[in-house]
Amino acid sequence: MANNQGAAMSQFPSAKALIPFVSVENMMRLVHHVGVETMLVELTDAIEADFRRWDVFDKTPRIASHSRDGVIELMPTSDGEIYGFKYVNGHPKNMAAGFQTVTAFGLLAQVSTGYPVLLTEMTLLTALRTAATSAMAARHLAPKKVRVMAMIGNGAQAEFQALAMKAVVGIEEVRLYDIDPQATAKAAANLADSGLIVTACGTAHEAIRGAGIITTCTADKQFATILTDNMVGAGVHINAIGGDCPGKTELHKDILARADTFVEYPPQTRVEGEIQQMDPDYPVTELWRVVRGEAEGRRDQRQITLFDSVGFAVEDFSALRYVREKLKGTDFYQEIDIIADPDDPRDLFGMLRRAKV
Amino acid sequence: MANNQGAAMSQFPSAKALIPFVSVENMMRLVHHVGVETMLVELTDAIEADFRRWDVFDKTPRIASHSRDGVIELMPTSDGEIYGFKYVNGHPKNMAAGFQTVTAFGLLAQVSTGYPVLLTEMTLLTALRTAATSAMAARHLAPKKVRVMAMIGNGAQAEFQALAMKAVVGIEEVRLYDIDPQATAKAAANLADSGLIVTACGTAHEAIRGAGIITTCTADKQFATILTDNMVGAGVHINAIGGDCPGKTELHKDILARADTFVEYPPQTRVEGEIQQMDPDYPVTELWRVVRGEAEGRRDQRQITLFDSVGFAVEDFSALRYVREKLKGTDFYQEIDIIADPDDPRDLFGMLRRAKV
Repeated sequence: MANNQGAAMSQFPSAKALIPFVSVENMMRLVHHVGVETMLVELTDAIEADFRRWDVFDKTPRIASHSRDGVIELMPTSDGEIYGFKYVNGHPKNMAAGFQTVTAFGLLAQVSTGYPVLLTEMTLLTALRTAATSAMAARHLAPKKVRVMAMIGNGAQAEFQALAMKAVVGIEEVRLYDIDPQATAKAAANLADSGLIVTACGTAHEAIRGAGIITTCTADKQFATILTDNMVGAGVHINAIGGDCPGKTELHKDILARADTFVEYPPQTRVEGEIQQMDPDYPVTELWRVVRGEAEGRRDQRQITLFDSVGFAVEDFSALRYVREKLKGTDFYQEIDIIADPDDPRDLFGMLRRAKV
Repeated sequence: MANNQGAAMSQFPSAKALIPFVSVENMMRLVHHVGVETMLVELTDAIEADFRRWDVFDKTPRIASHSRDGVIELMPTSDGEIYGFKYVNGHPKNMAAGFQTVTAFGLLAQVSTGYPVLLTEMTLLTALRTAATSAMAARHLAPKKVRVMAMIGNGAQAEFQALAMKAVVGIEEVRLYDIDPQATAKAAANLADSGLIVTACGTAHEAIRGAGIITTCTADKQFATILTDNMVGAGVHINAIGGDCPGKTELHKDILARADTFVEYPPQTRVEGEIQQMDPDYPVTELWRVVRGEAEGRRDQRQITLFDSVGFAVEDFSALRYVREKLKGTDFYQEIDIIADPDDPRDLFGMLRRAKV
């Protein structure tokens, strides 16, 4: 595919120089084109398919740059053919200043050439993939015929979580609680026409009443205790997604002592997850082993299962590949000229020189 | 700066959602607007200024994903106020297929919010910053009044290297050698009107004759020996930039035994640089200490100095900040909508919902 044209005849930028970029606006168009719930179901399946081939991935804990106000992380992985990474920040104080707590973008590249093949916003996509990952875990861990979920923390992730549990696991009612009633009102309004029974609750206690799935997704407290031991009855599945940083947890450790805990990637979760409160030998089961049928998920209807989710690069990789596939035949992207592509690859300077007008 | 407008009145995308993106084409416009040599001088000064405040940087060896055909790396750093990273690949076989061996892009973000503030191509910018870093090292290490440089390896970096040594160190002649005479012809043609005396040489031996600076920049050999011990006389400065990967070197180890070696960041260079051939306690001097006057650079005119350069994140950071500064008041960028910015930061789902047409 080398471009053999002379400099005078060559097109600039060439096709090799361009990669598709999915803006926030185009991501929203894509989501509505596919349908939110359909996309959540398809993402759940895409992530599950990658968890089944867990061993092919190049796994490394994310590379975090911590500062007083938050963290910036790079999360790379590769399956040997495609390389992907996500840039993501977490700044709990952002909200008060009118900024998102979490923003993200991601990239895929061809391993054989190192050339990028996709750049995309991932703030929305991360909310979708986090919800899909939660739903995948619940599919294997939640009690059978679960009908009610509690959603503790009604921020930016809440509606995505509820819709994924509806679309993938079949829940019919979501019980909302947040320390800020305005957040609950926002989530309730957004879910009003979702087909879910939506119940706004005044306390966390009230929210978890009758719930088979309890999702905690709160952001801004250090070592908070969103759930205490006495609140959690037998047989529930806890989906803990807010504790995802050193020093940031949501559950009292007595709950962990009673629960069977499932994680994405132990070296990362032991530092960032709820289990950072426990001894280094606290037993955990890797979720991919459950997905593959190599480890037991839910054993009985009295068991408390806990998905101690911190988010892992493989989930972003699955979501990025899914988006790349879905873009085909659509116009939900722009092409951006991010790769220098001289006619002769060694003639980078000549390309620069000839561009002088 | 919170956006207090209601959903119906809000602009989409908002100013907070947009970040400047510098395409390859716009980077070339910027370079010509500033002037190649001026930009190399200014980049040298920008990098030197950051080397002077070395201790403020969050330093970590780059995160490499190796495959059969090459490597993809992420190089993050931060000075506490601004965070930057570069994505860069190295695929020696790419050239034969008409692709660049090295392509790159980079990003700057605000540490306090985690919000990106600049996305830019960095294939060209990396060639410029690598040449500027070489020139900065030569400014401290090359023999006084050096007039001639040898350039061994005449690929994509060669002309940038020669021009930086001209503009910063004052060399007047460049002697070119490459195993492929076409590469030498290309570099000679590109430098024909540079003001340098350009001499194409048939052997490496011939190229280094009379040269006070010897730059090696070859790409595709594993443990190659571009320079043997007998080729290197007293008093020269060697600028070795091609050996930058585990298993990839250019110099015979006997040269290292005779030279005083200067490096960017020892934990990275001991794995990737020429000194991977030496014992772990082979003495090296960190270049930033020389720049700060805390360590000696060139001691006498007989000494062989070696800058064992592998490239470090701080150099990319300096280059990215330089570009961000230079963009002000120009139109050498596009704005891209990469950050989801709902009116209420917690209402990510509402933003998605309202975007449905």
